[in-house]
This record gives sequence, structure tokens and C-alpha cells, in this order.
Amino acid sequence: MRLLDEIAGIGRDQETGGYLRYAWSSAELELRDWFRAQARQRDLELQEDGNGNIFAWWGEGPGAVVTGSHFDSVPQGGAFDGPLGIVSALLAVDELRSLNKKPKHPIGIAVFAEEEGSRFGLACLGSRLLTGAVEPGIELVDRDGVHLREVITPAGRRDDILGRIGCFVELHIEQGRALSRPVGVASAIWPHGRWRLDFTGEPNHAGTTLMTDRRDPMLTFAFTVLAANKEARQRGAHATIGRVSAQPNATNAIAGRVTAWLDARAASTEVVDQLVSAVLDKARERSKKDGTAVELTTESVSGETRFDTALRDRLSHVLDDAPVLPTGAGHDAGVLSAHVPTAMLFVRNPTGISHSPAEHATDSDCAAGVTALARVLMDLAC
Amino acid sequence: MRLLDEIAGIGRDQETGGYLRYAWSSAELELRDWFRAQARQRDLELQEDGNGNIFAWWGEGPGAVVTGSHFDSVPQGGAFDGPLGIVSALLAVDELRSLNKKPKHPIGIAVFAEEEGSRFGLACLGSRLLTGAVEPGIELVDRDGVHLREVITPAGRRDDILGRIGCFVELHIEQGRALSRPVGVASAIWPHGRWRLDFTGEPNHAGTTLMTDRRDPMLTFAFTVLAANKEARQRGAHATIGRVSAQPNATNAIAGRVTAWLDARAASTEVVDQLVSAVLDKARERSKKDGTAVELTTESVSGETRFDTALRDRLSHVLDDAPVLPTGAGHDAGVLSAHVPTAMLFVRNPTGISHSPAEHATDSDCAAGVTALARVLMDLAC
Repeated sequence: MRLLDEIAGIGRDQETGGYLRYAWSSAELELRDWFRAQARQRDLELQEDGNGNIFAWWGEGPGAVVTGSHFDSVPQGGAFDGPLGIVSALLAVDELRSLNKKPKHPIGIAVFAEEEGSRFGLACLGSRLLTGAVEPGIELVDRDGVHLREVITPAGRRDDILGRIGCFVELHIEQGRALSRPVGVASAIWPHGRWRLDFTGEPNHAGTTLMTDRRDPMLTFAFTVLAANKEARQRGAHATIGRVSAQPNATNAIAGRVTAWLDARAASTEVVDQLVSAVLDKARERSKKDGTAVELTTESVSGETRFDTALRDRLSHVLDDAPVLPTGAGHDAGVLSAHVPTAMLFVRNPTGISHSPAEHATDSDCAAGVTALARVLMDLAC
Repeated sequence: MRLLDEIAGIGRDQETGGYLRYAWSSAELELRDWFRAQARQRDLELQEDGNGNIFAWWGEGPGAVVTGSHFDSVPQGGAFDGPLGIVSALLAVDELRSLNKKPKHPIGIAVFAEEEGSRFGLACLGSRLLTGAVEPGIELVDRDGVHLREVITPAGRRDDILGRIGCFVELHIEQGRALSRPVGVASAIWPHGRWRLDFTGEPNHAGTTLMTDRRDPMLTFAFTVLAANKEARQRGAHATIGRVSAQPNATNAIAGRVTAWLDARAASTEVVDQLVSAVLDKARERSKKDGTAVELTTESVSGETRFDTALRDRLSHVLDDAPVLPTGAGHDAGVLSAHVPTAMLFVRNPTGISHSPAEHATDSDCAAGVTALARVLMDLAC
């Protein structure tokens, strides 16, 4: 896909092929500049919302049909998660124009900031600020100790912009292997959240401390990793511990503290709550044996998102009865759906791999995604 | 202890009270400058060996009785592990002089570089370079990607210095709770080593990847942490995994790779080998279930050190039948013992805690250590 190829080199780790496009990093800022230039080439009117989000408008006034996604990536992420939605939006506008379509309602393309939460830890930060789901004064700190307020002074909720949006449709690469056709329509986003687990024990010498004298939090952590996996499988839910940090993290010292993050998702909030509670119970039980302590801190929780049923059915119908499917992944569309009728289009992912350099969609499926988005915009705006 | 108090602020983390005195860091270089000034105040002749080690000589010629230790710490280490041996050596010289002792043999105080291996991963690097146990061209890289050769061009084995040393006695804080008297004498150092374990799987999306589709190396790692603990306990050995790093280390991504370091020690090399082999077997077994791969790399191995029996018995006798005990911790004395008669004095550690800000020895035990070292130097050199 030509436009995706243009930005393929930005923020890419040459060694792994993965992307490091953290929000407000030089790579992500370069992508935003690229987007502004693309919007100007298409005579779209640019609007910044003061929360790090950018809008490019074709036409004026309210009742706009807005599409778009995000540029930021997880560490070592893929090329499609986020950028595909923005690039497809630009190309769908091109398609409408090549067909000489004149929209009755304005069309908007949105670029949201910090969707992954990979920098400041709170996913969908840009759309949450825009909609007032988080306060502009929120205290967030990245891994290097940089505060959000050092990067941006958020404007907070923008009713003027929300008021312009008639509906929002986000196109995104699918992140499982649930599609047998190139394009599908989302029904819902699983409830999900992030919890920090702090395991504390007693730092000590790895060589001289008797096994019976140890209070080793690495053991409690390890047990919890296995327990989280088991508890999730038993419930048909998803639990992942993919991030960990040990202190002092020395080869010849027993750790004094291990911090880990639990990502948990399931079809219902009830199951997510039960899962997290079961994991904590197992961790606490084990900590008694290890002489350690466990503390759980909720970092973010999102309830279930059910996308607008009428819009969902309309999109599926326009796209020749495209399949309707739920997803375990969070999206800005989930945040927007609390304020405006919202839908999502998914482009097929043959391996299901995502948040990885190996994430992939074929050129023809990506092209089918652009055509589908153009048809949807035509149906909704023209 | 006055001289220890003088350096207490150098390289100390204000928040934790732990020390970050990595070899050739500004903190460790400041400590060396402090040592040079202390040596000059005592009219000791300074000699640098080109490997990062410093010697301060009282008297000329061969047959020297050398004592000393290291300044560098593990991350978040304590105040005593290393510096106590250097400070006690300076104070023991003061004690001999206040008694108007004139040594027949020269006395030397050694400051060794990178004993902990916390920067370049190889413990006792300074003494290994001095004795030729490692080649000066060895390729070592620290966690920030800095090569050893960017920090120092090692001189390698120095026969001129080794030839001057008649015997070596290192004073060190004990690192278990094995002493009921203030000072003891070492019998042996347990065989020990460091192994890197690389667990590889498939990075993927934490929300959308089915539990059955995952190849999550964090699970294999967690299982291995618990297995290492169990295998060590079954053998009366010590195994620790205190250092871990995950890639991409994102909350919402399944890890693609987890790297961990195994520290293993036991009373015999045979048991260490059996232990490491059993841990690897368990890891491999589990990796089949997880769809992951495990690779083991030996980073350093030290066989058993038995200190010179005659010297050990002489020291114990001079110190009123001081108790004789083995240790699980490596020391420069272990490296030196392959070349010159070597012994160690241990100062009591009431809690046994070491490699931790909580490491402690009482003032009166530290003073007893200085007196013991002075008596030993007097016996051996005067």
C-alpha cells in the first residue's frame, strides 16, 4: 500500500523490524507532520484539539462522519495497528473524489494520541481527554520519569468538536484470526483492564543466603504468572503478564521487589473481575509461603463497549452482509462510543499476530478495506 | 567507623540508602581518588596495575603481605561489602604504626576493580586480569552497550606485581549468619557460576490472541524460576534468579523474549553442574508445552576455592582459635589463591543480609576486624 510504504521507515527498529512510535516521540511527531502535509494536499482543513489529537475536515458544520485511528505503537509493534486506519481514511477520501462524490455531511479524519498507552500507561489517552473521560490535570509519568504536563498541557473535553461529530467509524487491522473475508464489522469490545502487581520481599546475597532464610518476591511473581494463565484459561478469558521489572535486578542478588503488569480481558465485566480477584488470591496465598507481600493497583479499567446496533447493521448491510465480530482489543472507537454512534471496520489479519513486527495484512485486503471504508462514507455522508 | 563514614555519601541512592558504585562509574572513581589521598597521607607508595587495580605499598621488595578488597557494589548494595576490607587495611596500618611496628616484609593494600561484575557481568574482573585468568582482549559490554575497551585498555597479567606478593589476606563482611564471634577465618569458597537463560516465543496482542494460540516465553521463564528454587533446595544448594528482562516489555503485548540470569552455588562443582543441568531440563520440558525455546549460555564459572591450609590455621591460631567457615560468595581472594597463599577474615554480620542497603556490621565488630587484621599483619610481616 503506497501511503503505508511512505511512512514504513519512521520509528522502525532496523534490527527487529518492529516500531517504536511512542506518543509525542520524534517518530510519532514526524508521522503527524506527514499527516498534516497529506491533509493539506487534499485541501482538508486541519484542527488541533489541544489534547494531541488532530482532525482534518472535508466540509463544514455539524453532523460529520468521522473516521481515523492512531499513529502510536506498542514497543516493537507492527506497521498496521493504527496507521492503517489513518492511511485508509486518506485513500477513501481520494476514492470518493475520483468518483466525483460531494458529501452532504462533512467528513473528518481523526488522528488520536497515545492510543496504546505505551508511554504514559493509560490507553486511549487522546480520545479520553477529548471526551472528558479523564481530567486534563491527570498525573501521568512515563518510564523515564517525564510527566505528561512536561509534554502537553491538555485542553480537556472539547464539546465544540464532539458536537460536530455525527458518527465515528474506525478502520483497524483485526487482531485475531476471526475473519474469513477481507473486511468485517465490530459488534463489541471486551471489557478489559490493566493492573499493577507489586511483589516485595527482602533483597539479599544470592550466594550466601540460605534457601530457608529467603524472602524472594521473584518466586511469588513466577507463581502468579502461571496462576494468571491457568485462571484465564479456566474462564475462557485472556490474562497476560508481558511486562516485568525487578529491583535491584542483579545476577548475584535476590530481588527485593518485582513489579509486573496484568492485562485481563473477558466477554463480561463480571468475568474480568472474578479473574483478577482469583489471580490476586493465588498471589497472596503463595506470598505467605515465600514470606513476601503482594499489592494490586488498578491502572485502568474499561467496561464492555457495545457498538451502536443500527450503525453496525447498516455497515454490515452496505458491505454485502460483512461478518460481525467482537474484539478483545481496546480502541479509541470504544471511548467515542459513549458520546456518538460509533462503529468499527476490521481488515483481515491472516496470522492473527498483532503488537509484533510480524503483524501483517495483505495488500489486497488493505485495498478492500479502503473500498469498504469509501462505501461506508458514501452511504453515511453522501 | 570514622573512615567508612567519610565515604558513606558516595554513590548512595538517597531514596533507598543503597549503593550504586559500579566499576569505573563517577562514584567508584571518586572512591579511588579518596583511597589515593588516604595512601598519600600514610606515605604509602601508589602503584596502578593498568587493569583498574590500585596497590599502596609500605616498604619495598618481594615477599609482601597484601590485604585489601574492592569499592564497587552490586546495584543497591550495602556499605560494607568491599569497602570494609579497604578501610580496615588503612586502619590496621595505622594501628601497627601507633605501636611503632616496623614490618620486615612489605605490606600492601590492594583495591580491586569490578569485583561484583555488576557492570560488565564478569565477577572479579580486576583480579582476573591481574593474574591472567582472563585475557586483556576479552570482549565485555555493559547494560548500556559500552564496551570494556572504551573504559580501559587492560594491561593483562602483571608478573612484576604478582611476584611481589608473598601472601594475600582479604578482610570482608560475612554474608550469612554463620559467625557467633566478631571475626572468623575462611576455609573455602563454594563453586559458583552465572548462566544466562534466553526464553523465546512469539510476541503478540495480549487482548486478542487466544490462550491456545500463544507461545508465551514468560510462562516458561516463570516455571523455570520455581524449578530452580526447588532443585536447589533438594540438593542443599543455592539457586537464584534475581535479574530478568522482557521484550517488548509492554503491558498489552505477550512477550516475544524473556532473558534471565541464573546464579547457582553448592559445596561441590558436581552438585552445581547437576543443579544447572536439572534446571535446564525442567525449562526445556516446560518449553514444549508453551511452544517456546530455551537457550542456556554460561557467563562465568568458578570451581571450588580451598584457601591455603597452613595460612588459614596460622590466622585462626593468632586470633585465639577464631572459627573457620566456608562461604557461598565469590571474592578476589579466590582468584588470588591460585597464585599466592591466600586467606580471608570475615567480620560478623548479625542479620546475614548482604547485597542490600540493610547490610550491616556493628561498630565494635568492625573495630574487632581492624584489630584482628593488624594482629595478622604483625604476625605475617613483622
